[in-house]
Amino acid sequence: MSEHSEILARLFAPVEGGMARMRRVLEEQLHESSDAVRDMTDHVGRFRGKQLRAALVLLCGEASGNTTDEHAKVAAIVEMIHLATLVHDDILDGAEVRRRMACVNQRWNNQVAVLLGDFLYARAFGLSTTLSSGLCSRLLSETTSKLCVGEIEQSTRRYDFELSQADYERIAGAKTASLYSAACELGARYPGGNERVGELMRCFGWDLGLAFQIIDDVLDLTETTEQLGKSAGTDVEDGKVTLPVLFVYRSADEGTRAAIRDVYTAAGIEDRARKLAEVCDLGPGLRAAMRRAKDLIAACRERIVSLEESPARTALLEITEFITERRL
Amino acid sequence: MSEHSEILARLFAPVEGGMARMRRVLEEQLHESSDAVRDMTDHVGRFRGKQLRAALVLLCGEASGNTTDEHAKVAAIVEMIHLATLVHDDILDGAEVRRRMACVNQRWNNQVAVLLGDFLYARAFGLSTTLSSGLCSRLLSETTSKLCVGEIEQSTRRYDFELSQADYERIAGAKTASLYSAACELGARYPGGNERVGELMRCFGWDLGLAFQIIDDVLDLTETTEQLGKSAGTDVEDGKVTLPVLFVYRSADEGTRAAIRDVYTAAGIEDRARKLAEVCDLGPGLRAAMRRAKDLIAACRERIVSLEESPARTALLEITEFITERRL
Repeated sequence: MSEHSEILARLFAPVEGGMARMRRVLEEQLHESSDAVRDMTDHVGRFRGKQLRAALVLLCGEASGNTTDEHAKVAAIVEMIHLATLVHDDILDGAEVRRRMACVNQRWNNQVAVLLGDFLYARAFGLSTTLSSGLCSRLLSETTSKLCVGEIEQSTRRYDFELSQADYERIAGAKTASLYSAACELGARYPGGNERVGELMRCFGWDLGLAFQIIDDVLDLTETTEQLGKSAGTDVEDGKVTLPVLFVYRSADEGTRAAIRDVYTAAGIEDRARKLAEVCDLGPGLRAAMRRAKDLIAACRERIVSLEESPARTALLEITEFITERRL
Repeated sequence: MSEHSEILARLFAPVEGGMARMRRVLEEQLHESSDAVRDMTDHVGRFRGKQLRAALVLLCGEASGNTTDEHAKVAAIVEMIHLATLVHDDILDGAEVRRRMACVNQRWNNQVAVLLGDFLYARAFGLSTTLSSGLCSRLLSETTSKLCVGEIEQSTRRYDFELSQADYERIAGAKTASLYSAACELGARYPGGNERVGELMRCFGWDLGLAFQIIDDVLDLTETTEQLGKSAGTDVEDGKVTLPVLFVYRSADEGTRAAIRDVYTAAGIEDRARKLAEVCDLGPGLRAAMRRAKDLIAACRERIVSLEESPARTALLEITEFITERRL
């Protein structure tokens, strides 16, 4: 086992049984009767990832003394929605298709990715309609629509260096924190009632998800593709002005600002993220962004200290640590 | 009013009030608080189209003596799902983006279309969770997943000239007839019960939708872009081997078969649909396909003659006529 999977196994230990059930549900759902679809869901299934969102459903349930037989299903549904968003994130526009020609299956990729994502969403909603309570359907359809709005806004605010920190956080919150938040709230509240602790865990999940997104944005600027295990520097490439860059831009002189804008927009620049680090000192921006992420994590931790001590609560506290240490 | 909208107004007259309520619900749902999203939903709203699926919910409800205050909402939900599929149908793969460069907004189109479609799906499911019965959520999430499977299968069976008529109909059914079928069943059954007439209307909708798809495939080969109001000849271009072509291919000699395959696949052919009509006689295939569509329509009509006479039943019968006369 790698160090990383050892950490995950330890963190998820309090809900080991639930995670195993969740994975079985997920497999059943991905295993569609049509061969054509099965090929693709098998492929998606291999991208299993951390399954952190599913684990949060179960851990928040345990930590707030609220676990039902249906929690594993709820966790699988949350994970399927996350998978659908991942699949749809891979849709490229024309320019990118050309730029990334080598790694894209030309005749196939976009259309099938759209349909596969749609299939995963539909299956997730379908499964949620079989639950005994409507809370999961309601909360997750709201969350999904919020998530899309966040992504659309992000897309329309590309190359916008005047974005305020509040706008950045609103958008990052909608696109990332909303699903974390729904996962935590569902864990604490499903099938219903439990409003107080549900609200608490909802806020816990929101701050955790927002911190996660900020750190993700920091890493996209600082890590190499090998360290990250996915393409680095893509935010600058895609015109996304993330929190570290906003901080640097805000306090830069007009010359540096122009240079930053140029790096994002001028034609023919090969490695925009590296070039960005050359035209300005990203250090203060990166540090300020990490400070903000750590403040959010501190708020997270304070929220759950009021819960009774339990292995699940300990795991949640450890998750917040690992996220700040960039190990999750 | 054009001849076309006059026909629609007459057909939908028995459910005029419901259609007006449906449109109000649709507008409310598309009118999202974020400016960025509103721009796009306004755009989608303008593509209003016939709203035939919504009308089928209401007409089938009326015709089977089953109308509730919530039928207009159900109709709006069905229409939103249809809109989402239309938006996602516009996602192009790399090759097409290049070929259709002139009409595609390069930097924007695909990603935003994916998100907007997702938003519409999520809103549709979200709205369905506010209904008093879970039937709509259940039926429409199943339908959406079936619909995606149909589209995925179609995509994997491109350039497959060995496709049987049964496979073609299974795929066309899943991608098109399933939503017609769900619309008709929901009209007759929502909020629940009414199994017998629900089953009847489900079959009515399935045959109607399948006939509609077959005729659509015929028109794509026979009409010009102006007559059609959308690009003609796209099926051949996209590698879709539709029923008329399957019929022709099946009874062609090996030389003609090779010529047909070439027209679909050889590089550098400008207008593949026109070229196809040159290398083989499409006539018998087109006529056989239309015969199949008319048989399906005849089955449709027989299904609903058992319903009590009413203006809604008359409208449903007229819809089946207009579909075969290619006027809907």
